[in-house]
Amino acid sequence: MSKQFDVLVIGAGPAGYIAAIRAAQLGFSVACAEGNAYADPKGEPRLGGTCLNVGCIPSKALLASSEEFEKIQHHLDDHGISVSSAKVDVAKMVGRKNAIVDKMTGGIQFLFRKNKVTLLKGYGKFVGKTDAGVQVDVAGEVFTAKQVIVATGSKARHLAGIPVDNKLICDNEGALNFDAIPKKLGVIGAGVIGLELGSVWRRLGADVEILEAAPSFLAAADEGVAKEMQKIFTKQGLKISTGVKIGDVATTKKGVVVNYTDAAGAAQKLECDRLIVSVGRVPNTDGLNLEAIGLKANERGQIDVNDHCQTAVAGVWAIGDVVRGPMLAHKGEEEGVMVAELIAGQAGHCNFNTIPWVIYTSPEVAWVGATEQQLKAEGRTYKVGSFPFMANGRALGQGDSQGFVKILADAKTDEVLGAHIINSHASDLIAEVVMAMEFKAASEDIGRICHAHPSLSEVVKEAALACDKRALNM
Amino acid sequence: MSKQFDVLVIGAGPAGYIAAIRAAQLGFSVACAEGNAYADPKGEPRLGGTCLNVGCIPSKALLASSEEFEKIQHHLDDHGISVSSAKVDVAKMVGRKNAIVDKMTGGIQFLFRKNKVTLLKGYGKFVGKTDAGVQVDVAGEVFTAKQVIVATGSKARHLAGIPVDNKLICDNEGALNFDAIPKKLGVIGAGVIGLELGSVWRRLGADVEILEAAPSFLAAADEGVAKEMQKIFTKQGLKISTGVKIGDVATTKKGVVVNYTDAAGAAQKLECDRLIVSVGRVPNTDGLNLEAIGLKANERGQIDVNDHCQTAVAGVWAIGDVVRGPMLAHKGEEEGVMVAELIAGQAGHCNFNTIPWVIYTSPEVAWVGATEQQLKAEGRTYKVGSFPFMANGRALGQGDSQGFVKILADAKTDEVLGAHIINSHASDLIAEVVMAMEFKAASEDIGRICHAHPSLSEVVKEAALACDKRALNM
Repeated sequence: MSKQFDVLVIGAGPAGYIAAIRAAQLGFSVACAEGNAYADPKGEPRLGGTCLNVGCIPSKALLASSEEFEKIQHHLDDHGISVSSAKVDVAKMVGRKNAIVDKMTGGIQFLFRKNKVTLLKGYGKFVGKTDAGVQVDVAGEVFTAKQVIVATGSKARHLAGIPVDNKLICDNEGALNFDAIPKKLGVIGAGVIGLELGSVWRRLGADVEILEAAPSFLAAADEGVAKEMQKIFTKQGLKISTGVKIGDVATTKKGVVVNYTDAAGAAQKLECDRLIVSVGRVPNTDGLNLEAIGLKANERGQIDVNDHCQTAVAGVWAIGDVVRGPMLAHKGEEEGVMVAELIAGQAGHCNFNTIPWVIYTSPEVAWVGATEQQLKAEGRTYKVGSFPFMANGRALGQGDSQGFVKILADAKTDEVLGAHIINSHASDLIAEVVMAMEFKAASEDIGRICHAHPSLSEVVKEAALACDKRALNM
Repeated sequence: MSKQFDVLVIGAGPAGYIAAIRAAQLGFSVACAEGNAYADPKGEPRLGGTCLNVGCIPSKALLASSEEFEKIQHHLDDHGISVSSAKVDVAKMVGRKNAIVDKMTGGIQFLFRKNKVTLLKGYGKFVGKTDAGVQVDVAGEVFTAKQVIVATGSKARHLAGIPVDNKLICDNEGALNFDAIPKKLGVIGAGVIGLELGSVWRRLGADVEILEAAPSFLAAADEGVAKEMQKIFTKQGLKISTGVKIGDVATTKKGVVVNYTDAAGAAQKLECDRLIVSVGRVPNTDGLNLEAIGLKANERGQIDVNDHCQTAVAGVWAIGDVVRGPMLAHKGEEEGVMVAELIAGQAGHCNFNTIPWVIYTSPEVAWVGATEQQLKAEGRTYKVGSFPFMANGRALGQGDSQGFVKILADAKTDEVLGAHIINSHASDLIAEVVMAMEFKAASEDIGRICHAHPSLSEVVKEAALACDKRALNM
């Protein structure tokens, strides 16, 4: 194997593997180092990173399965369909999820072979810099590349005094592999991961209680969306307490006991058979030996980069969860494409203002651009157009009438500044607004563009029309 | 009641009621005449037209219900979910559909009241034209309006010798109200309506056979899409024969016998308990008394109009299924908004090139712009980018991996000329391509815009990248 490459990518998660493939498409000799074997039975490194192995993809598989189960139990009667009993085989459900993950990670191996990306098995570690390029050690061998892209991602943040064993006390990895449905599931942290995994197990029958330290729920989302989702989750049976202070956590014969102080300052106790700790994620920079090339992680554990993902060292780039910005797979992918194209001398670019956010609960939450509270803080004058799925024929037809679309547009120019969607297909519905914002569309543009009838996307159009108080069906 | 209005709309289907509401928003005094009571128990006219009463909305409700039933029977095992028996109560399923229709038609009544649109109960009929405006008779009373918009829609085409009784032999109206699941269902016509209704009853357990006179299947769709859909339908158990010639049709004690000649010229017989006749739709111009104002229907039964939906008579407009162009609800709605705005002196406009088409089967088919065969016929040089849902993590997660997105772009300018989607959410996924085409986007634009991961919309992005042979995940 050659030890010299044009481009060496450290990490084969969504940011890294996309950067490697794009660089290979552009004609470079490319290597990609990955050391994480996750639960691979042979201990071989698995491609796709957190997202594919223990994040987005497996959680969506379990969300789909658990949604089917919930539907059977609660939503078929409406349709005139009756079933006499419904059972879940958790091992089989988890097996389906694992099969999907296997297929997708295998798919990246195929893509690497097809694009002639050399897979280096092991974690990459900086050795130094010579005239020939940057030196990276992978499993004891030193490779040299003119350009190195760090895409080492992030790992679950753990809390002092709460030892994660991924059996009783789990982070995202363990929570995707329960062998049975907990009776009572505790979750610390009402962020995206806590809500998604809490939803999975609630739908399968667990009694789920979520403790959140922040004083308000889903603070990153638009306030109107956060308020509505809190109502929806509560109605679904998720118990969510905000403003809590977590105290001692102890494991007992029966499970886990979390002592905490509630928002009112009263001492409380949460007893559960399993506990998920989902309190954010930490960039993976340990073990990179950044010092060898004169870099170091910042106080948040990130590698500092500019808008082009360049570090302070020429020829060294960093992308994805290991740098500033939202920890979203597609943000990392965009950065990966940008860096590969910049290395090729092209005009790589990433528009951080049009990166959509999605929370994959049921219904889903998706947004792009500014929230109302951000616009208020900026002192910007804006219009709001909102339209409920309750007034959409397709949504009623498919029994999917919760939520709304809310569009924010500049009061003077009518430019769309943000869009916020609650709907079971929000992750797809947001795409047309991202497209519109990339073209600097006005809300009137969206309102004037033909949308298929009946479709959920009509609600996007009506919300846009509502910005000028001329929704047609409300 | 005043007998003089600024604007009088004849017909309260999607084109008509939207035109009426938009005209009212613009400050006009507006009336809307509707005479069709459909199955209203009190014989009162129902708003919403074919689409809402006996078309798009009720069929989508039944498609949703029947899809749930099919899922339970065939697709839960994968998820590790088992049910011991599943039964359908057809009356309850149809009742749910009716409740949704009632809610939506009631919604339009509310919108009329809110927007101060006067509902005239009865079919509108031209009387003549005076200096005060155009005279229209509704249930024996004559109303005068400066501007009249004809939006009378269309009705099912019937065939000579095949008497539709909406019991044994049905058009779209009867086929939405079966009281039991037919054992064997015959369908004449493999168009959108035949495929949608055939799919509903097949999923509920009927053995469905479709006879189509045209030599090829789904000729209006892109050839690649039509070919793939024929495979998918056949795999689902829909038996489709093209190139047939329908002969005698007789009703017997057991049901219906259709004698036909197959594509090879051999005499064949289809015996079924129910027959759906879905061979296109005819514009509703009978009874309008067009001659009274100097108009007449063309040889297709349509009212001739220009791109602004103006007829040959000043102050008389026509929109929706009663004029040229595709018989799609949202096309009629766009025309309704355009005409109301033109009447108000605004720059109303309708881009007929960006009207999406949808077939609501499972998976759905949606497209916008040109098909490959159209581009070939025009002698245009183009690029094709295609990407399968099989390679998309979200699609795999939700067990939804059939189909693909195909994007056609100009070979020189890269402008997107068409998009063709097979997927269960195609009707929503097409929206971003419509948006892109309205902004004259290049395929590279779609490929460079961030799409949420994991989402089905990533397949649109990858197909766009594939136009330049640089899909990332294939």
